[in-house]
Order: sequence, then structure tokens, then C-alpha cells
Amino acid sequence: MTPSAATPAYRRLSVEERRSQLLDTALSLFAHRAPEDVSLDDVAETAGVSRPLVYRYFPGGKQQLYEAALRSAAEELRQCFDEPRQGPPLLRLSRALDRYLTFVDEHGTGFSALLQGGSVVETSRTTAIVDGVRRAAAEHIFGHLGVVDPGPRLRMTVRMWITAVEAASLIWLDEDKQPPAGELRDWLVEQFVAVLTVTAGRDAQTAALLGTLAGEG
Amino acid sequence: MTPSAATPAYRRLSVEERRSQLLDTALSLFAHRAPEDVSLDDVAETAGVSRPLVYRYFPGGKQQLYEAALRSAAEELRQCFDEPRQGPPLLRLSRALDRYLTFVDEHGTGFSALLQGGSVVETSRTTAIVDGVRRAAAEHIFGHLGVVDPGPRLRMTVRMWITAVEAASLIWLDEDKQPPAGELRDWLVEQFVAVLTVTAGRDAQTAALLGTLAGEG
Repeated sequence: MTPSAATPAYRRLSVEERRSQLLDTALSLFAHRAPEDVSLDDVAETAGVSRPLVYRYFPGGKQQLYEAALRSAAEELRQCFDEPRQGPPLLRLSRALDRYLTFVDEHGTGFSALLQGGSVVETSRTTAIVDGVRRAAAEHIFGHLGVVDPGPRLRMTVRMWITAVEAASLIWLDEDKQPPAGELRDWLVEQFVAVLTVTAGRDAQTAALLGTLAGEG
Repeated sequence: MTPSAATPAYRRLSVEERRSQLLDTALSLFAHRAPEDVSLDDVAETAGVSRPLVYRYFPGGKQQLYEAALRSAAEELRQCFDEPRQGPPLLRLSRALDRYLTFVDEHGTGFSALLQGGSVVETSRTTAIVDGVRRAAAEHIFGHLGVVDPGPRLRMTVRMWITAVEAASLIWLDEDKQPPAGELRDWLVEQFVAVLTVTAGRDAQTAALLGTLAGEG
């Protein structure tokens, strides 16, 4: 645990750089262990820095570290949804799903623990962070579809699909990442169209939207 | 708070009856308030019994009461899925959804708090109870569909649909129970068929199953 001259501890980092290094370290640990099993000491050891340093950055302890790492992961997730508004909307959805599945792939266990809840470090604050990502995903979808004021049926359909995608990613992690990411992505896009088609039979706004999607491919 | 001769406190109940009365009271309180906002004192007052009596039944306090109420709600939910194996499978699914939506309707806030997580009383034990209900729902569906050994794609499809149904019920509660339960039920059944149809294009087992469903209506 004693930092040697070879460890990153002696690189001079700015406060922001150091903070970001510690969060990256925490996220990499959460990828293989449940958040409650990761201590500040583990983060210090893995990052090759002294324990007091980590405690200085996260005086609130494990809970503060977890929330900060979660915020950072949520920010990364939101970036997955950032897709230029060009080309057929379903192709854009496909590309965003590619980035999302890469994120899920890289964050493994930490992602599951986070979404499955029941973690001892889960609070209403952490739930709000996760819900914020879900809301952002829905807003991105409506934006790309050109829907300004989604009605209740269209909104419910999109939110249900987002939840189903989350469930799919958790099951995917559980099942050794089968089917391959590319197949899962196409399957999820097909499901998106299928549930919109069902809703179109009950909702004029969704029917009009589907007409546009079919036209643009 | 002093029990009077008119309150149920003086009815002689067996241990099991008393326990069940207290759990029903707790569930009715959870229907309007988040679990962490319901104290053992509230339960005593609402049930019209003395506080020491409630503490005798739930010496573990609020957490024990919550877990016991959750177990009792989970048992009730499982009973929603109990449907005779007669008639077209989609009609059976429809009837089970009717009972499920009635349950959601009656348990309101408590149901949301439970499924949305982030509650201070949520633990890995309570998560396991909720997951057990989800698993039971999936098993019932496979049983009714006559699927003995569901492959990964069929299993993932059904689990995603169950999660989407949960999401729909939470949104439904948020949106003043619109659309009406009967319409929501039909919509969910249509989505079930739609996502199975998508999977059928990628999975022979699901394709065969869908053929049977279409035959039986």
C-alpha cells in the first residue's frame, strides 16, 4: 500500500484530474463488484494513492464516492444518446443502442447493481439519478422522432420500451452477453417498431409517426 | 389512542388472525404513503390496538413490518396469476392481467414505492421478494403457453414484457389511471403478441408457439 515512485501517486494532477481519476477507478471496481463491496481503501490501493488522499476527495465516505461515480456513469450514459439528427431515425436509434450496449458491456456488474437496486447504498438520490437518465433517453427519442408534444399513449409506449431495454441489458449480462450485441440491437429496434405499431392502432399521433418512420426507413 | 370497548382491540383474535389483521392494516397504509413514512404507531392507531401489541408482533420494528407486508402482497400478487388452464391462452393472460391491474389499483402508492425502489427500507431481501414475483409471473406464462423448456430468446422476450407491464402500471398510477384498466389490459396483450412476433422472426421455438396461439385465438 506504500506508494512507490513508480505509481501514479507522484504524478502531479489538478484537483479535477485527480477527482476524475478516482471516479474512473471506482467505476472500474464497480464493474466487477457490487458497490457496497468497494471501500475507499480499495480505490486508494487500485489508484496507487494514499488513503488520506481519497478520504480528502470523498469525506462523505463510500456513499459519496458511490453517488459521484453514479453521476459520472449517468453522464456517460447520456452521451450515448447524443446522436446527430441526420439520416433515418431508426438508424440513429440503432447507433445509440450500439453505444449503450458498449457501455453496458464495459460496466458489467456495476451497471446491474445500479439498475437492480436493493443495494445498501441505494437512496432516493441515487434513484433520482437513474430516473433522470431514463427521462433523458425518452426525450432524445421524441426529439429524433420529431415529436414535440407526445400524448399519454405514445409516451407510455416509449417509456415501456426503455424499461424493456434495461431489462434486456441486465438479462444479457446474466447470460454471458448472448445474443451478440449486434443481434440484440437489431432485435430491440424491431421491438420498438412493433410496440409503436400496436399503439398506432389505438392512437392517431402514433399512427402518423409510424407513417413517417416507414417513409424514411 | 386509548383503545375503547368499541374498537376491534377487544375482539379475541388468534395469533394468526391478529398478525394478518396488522399486515392488512399496514398494506392499507402503504397504499397511500411511502413505506418509510408508516410507523408501527400508525399501524397500532389504525388497527385500534395498543402499541405494545404491534411491537410484540413485529419486534424488528418498521423493517420487519415492511418485509412481512411485502411478503403478504407478493403472495396476493402470485394469486393474481392463478388461472385455470382452460380456454384460449390469450384470454387467460387477459384475465390474469385484470386481476393484476385490480391489485395495482387497490395498492396504489405502496405498489409504486415497492417497485420503484430507492426506499430507505429496501434491502437485498425485499428485492429478492419482488424478483420472486417476477419469476413466478414468467413461469405461469410458460406453463399456460405449454412451453416446457423456454430457450434464451423466448425467455428474454417474456421477461422484457413483464418488466414493461410493471413500468406501465407505475405510469398508469402516475397518470390518474388512464387509459381505463380494460383498455390498458387489451393493449398489453397486443404488445405481448407483437413482441413474440418479432422474436418469432429470430427463433424457431417462438415461431412454433405463435402458430399455436394463432390457432387457439
